[in-house]
Amino acid sequence: MSTNKPLIGAAIIGQSGGPSAVINASAYGVIKTALESDCITKVYGAHHGIMGVLNDRLMIMDEEDPAELELLLHTPSSALGSCRYKIADPETDDTDFKRILEIFRKYNVRYFFYNGGNDSMDTCNKISRYMKQVGYECRVFGVPKTIDNDLFGTDHCPGFASAAKYIATSIMEVSRDSKVYDKGMVTIVECMGRHAGWLTAAAALCKQTGDGPDLIYLPEVDFTMEQFLSDVERVYKERGNCLVAVSEGVHYADGSFVSEAKTSGTDGFGHAQLGGLAVRLAEAVKKDLGVKVRGIELSLLQRCAAHCASATDIQESFNSGKVAVESAIAGESGKMVGFVCDRDNGYTCHYQLFDLEKVANFEKKVPPEWITPDGCNVTDDFIRYCAPLICGETALRYENGLPRFAKLKQVFAE
Amino acid sequence: MSTNKPLIGAAIIGQSGGPSAVINASAYGVIKTALESDCITKVYGAHHGIMGVLNDRLMIMDEEDPAELELLLHTPSSALGSCRYKIADPETDDTDFKRILEIFRKYNVRYFFYNGGNDSMDTCNKISRYMKQVGYECRVFGVPKTIDNDLFGTDHCPGFASAAKYIATSIMEVSRDSKVYDKGMVTIVECMGRHAGWLTAAAALCKQTGDGPDLIYLPEVDFTMEQFLSDVERVYKERGNCLVAVSEGVHYADGSFVSEAKTSGTDGFGHAQLGGLAVRLAEAVKKDLGVKVRGIELSLLQRCAAHCASATDIQESFNSGKVAVESAIAGESGKMVGFVCDRDNGYTCHYQLFDLEKVANFEKKVPPEWITPDGCNVTDDFIRYCAPLICGETALRYENGLPRFAKLKQVFAE
Repeated sequence: MSTNKPLIGAAIIGQSGGPSAVINASAYGVIKTALESDCITKVYGAHHGIMGVLNDRLMIMDEEDPAELELLLHTPSSALGSCRYKIADPETDDTDFKRILEIFRKYNVRYFFYNGGNDSMDTCNKISRYMKQVGYECRVFGVPKTIDNDLFGTDHCPGFASAAKYIATSIMEVSRDSKVYDKGMVTIVECMGRHAGWLTAAAALCKQTGDGPDLIYLPEVDFTMEQFLSDVERVYKERGNCLVAVSEGVHYADGSFVSEAKTSGTDGFGHAQLGGLAVRLAEAVKKDLGVKVRGIELSLLQRCAAHCASATDIQESFNSGKVAVESAIAGESGKMVGFVCDRDNGYTCHYQLFDLEKVANFEKKVPPEWITPDGCNVTDDFIRYCAPLICGETALRYENGLPRFAKLKQVFAE
Repeated sequence: MSTNKPLIGAAIIGQSGGPSAVINASAYGVIKTALESDCITKVYGAHHGIMGVLNDRLMIMDEEDPAELELLLHTPSSALGSCRYKIADPETDDTDFKRILEIFRKYNVRYFFYNGGNDSMDTCNKISRYMKQVGYECRVFGVPKTIDNDLFGTDHCPGFASAAKYIATSIMEVSRDSKVYDKGMVTIVECMGRHAGWLTAAAALCKQTGDGPDLIYLPEVDFTMEQFLSDVERVYKERGNCLVAVSEGVHYADGSFVSEAKTSGTDGFGHAQLGGLAVRLAEAVKKDLGVKVRGIELSLLQRCAAHCASATDIQESFNSGKVAVESAIAGESGKMVGFVCDRDNGYTCHYQLFDLEKVANFEKKVPPEWITPDGCNVTDDFIRYCAPLICGETALRYENGLPRFAKLKQVFAE
């Protein structure tokens, strides 16, 4: 539903879910565009996502130094604070939504931008639905972010490319390090990705340089320990070394995670907290082959490595925030900004709106045709898809040899 | 003993021990200077350090493309291959030394440069002693490298600063990531360093930016689990979050490593292979405080992160190789190139020769006066010492979004 009637009021931007190296670039796209817009009267940052709305903790972005805000382009993690709060269905329990409406009314909020992944798009969609239902005029927009790259519709997700660039770069470096001795080694690098293997697949990018991993295991393929050990043995015997990239979410045919016994808790959405897989697999290899092993978990490092961010990703992330505000002002609502890309004559990226209803809670996986038939690598089609996304290096500013990240004043409303 | 008589013959450069982000910058300093020198007739790279000499596996550096060699400035790990071979005392068992002499004679080697840490300086010193003893004229030089920063005499060691810069940068990023949620977390980052805590102390560099760790544990201070848990609890209660940097080598008062039960083997020098400490400590905190925890091991990433190298380190590493060759040509031998630095009026670094005899097998630790009395942090004096070393960013070349590392042809002699 598009209308040209200008809607005057305040805007809230919130960030949710796991942070990324460029989620603040998206937020900056929203904040800058909103601050410069005539019909947006005030720009609030919700402290810790939707929790900040529920708790009436709103930071006034108009109070921040513009130069400091610009540093958000190169500042990792969620500068406004994040949360992992699972909101109810408004039809089942509207307590939270009544409170959100109360806050929206209090600050005359007419624009709501939510910057996050699958669960955040779900939250965003529910708020959009509720506001429509109660007849409160408010333009609600999803600004995508997920290093997992698993959002429906869009060609790829802001945040993915920077994590991919970090993973490929680190694997190139680890590859050189792990092959340096006269005696070989099996090195296992664990990447994030519960259900989708995009990040782990990105390790294959350095295949082009000759420093790539020998084997890649994604959650899209059922894992068997026997096949894994046999793959590693084959490569090690052939090349004297073996470098493996494995997704934290690899699982057996019955769906149980290979790292399962190490699971010590769940997050707010009932997801198991994974980790420790690399060490576990390294130990299995050591026991089976008796060779030197090393397990490396990229852990949080891969999702916050702003110093290794992709310039393409930064630009696209900023633009997705900008397009969200422009589209909202133009009358759109209940949408998420996504990318439509062309790789045939160079790389081009266009912005398109996707229905939140369709995006929410759908997980896009690595397509089977991009996984090699033996299940332990990805095809050149994946490389062609991913390679343009990591191009360009960050213009991160350094002071005394260390990154200069944004420091917000955090002036709260009231 | 210095003489001005020009010594004509070939040179061998070898690399040994754990690699670093800039060990190749040192090797390039040796190779470039040797290739340009009139009295050095040929430059060989020993494949896998002293093993390459023993096995007669010498790469002819004269055959390499100069542009490719220059990329060594920004290429991590040991491009010539490394080893962890512990050579005997020539007085006890001279088998290896006879073989080395045989190879030196075969190729008329009159210059030998060994690029590595403590153990490599020991090897270098033994070769120097043996050659003198049998009257074979050969100038033997140590070119220092160790991220551990524990070599005697020199102000600091090539490789340390780049690892320090990577650690401080990563801790800044992880700090932002780990403090993003509305619920707090205890994050434990494990850095390398068996007996010396220099690398872990480097985490304190980001104290200046406000993103530093709350607690720092070095092997220079006896560890007690009770004190550690009490420190973490205090910080967590005070700040709602806690970020800890801990050295892999922290140990109890009886000398046993805290990570000991995880020890699964020893390297060629009888050193225990450490690791898994971060996860172990995180679990102890979780059990004690019942809070969310995350253990992150920087593992190999910290020693091979060429993409995050310090420009100061790259330059000094190159110069140490260059000075080694120039000093050898000038008649010096049995020495290691070290740094003498002044931090009073800006930062200046001068090159000085240290007797290998004194350097070999001595480990320099973080001085007690640079550790805070409570044993869980470092002082500003440490920051003043370390800060200038990480200044400047690498000029690493990128191709298609990924580092362009050197690819050597590896043309072997004979």
